[in-house]
Amino acid sequence: MIQDASKLQTDRKALLVNSVDPISSLRDMRDSIDNIDAAIIHMLAERFRCTRLVGKLKAQNGLAPSDPGREAEQVSRLRQLAAASKLDPDFAEKFLAFVIREVIRHHESIPPGGAA
Amino acid sequence: MIQDASKLQTDRKALLVNSVDPISSLRDMRDSIDNIDAAIIHMLAERFRCTRLVGKLKAQNGLAPSDPGREAEQVSRLRQLAAASKLDPDFAEKFLAFVIREVIRHHESIPPGGAA
Repeated sequence: MIQDASKLQTDRKALLVNSVDPISSLRDMRDSIDNIDAAIIHMLAERFRCTRLVGKLKAQNGLAPSDPGREAEQVSRLRQLAAASKLDPDFAEKFLAFVIREVIRHHESIPPGGAA
Repeated sequence: MIQDASKLQTDRKALLVNSVDPISSLRDMRDSIDNIDAAIIHMLAERFRCTRLVGKLKAQNGLAPSDPGREAEQVSRLRQLAAASKLDPDFAEKFLAFVIREVIRHHESIPPGGAA
């Protein structure tokens, strides 16, 4: 049974890639990509809600906007998660840097005292 | 009851931001950020699984690697999703461009015929 399930999976992938109707297969894969993008956008929205609170907390307590130790931990953790899910760890690191640049841009716009 | 729930929510936020122990509050928010980042990394891994299949399909069927019409639709849709979830639509657009640059880099490494 396990072998059958595995064969079914392989057949499904072959069907998707070698279908006689590549346009329909392409449309199908794009629907999945669109669903994934919607999930990521909502996750990013929630992430910035958190980092906005962090920014206010730091400003109100005189803490530095950036924290190189924390960032090094994040890079290391995300590289490991990426490798485990077969995502290029270099891309994961670039992604984190891209998001942190935006977070720092937000934090710099909060005046000391946090009354943004 | 609804008012009570709303007040509780406000009190919780005030507690997080104005806590007497900002370090503990910061740690708490960072745990949320780490969970969100793990979710995004896994979503990105799944997205690249899809785009790799799309790349092979396009190569095998002689379709162009990039598709400006599709990209314009994606930008418009993600900007709307971003606005609805209070994420900066410009950031959502930059994020999509960042991911698509990586996808095109992957597609360019697939030889014609798709036997990568």
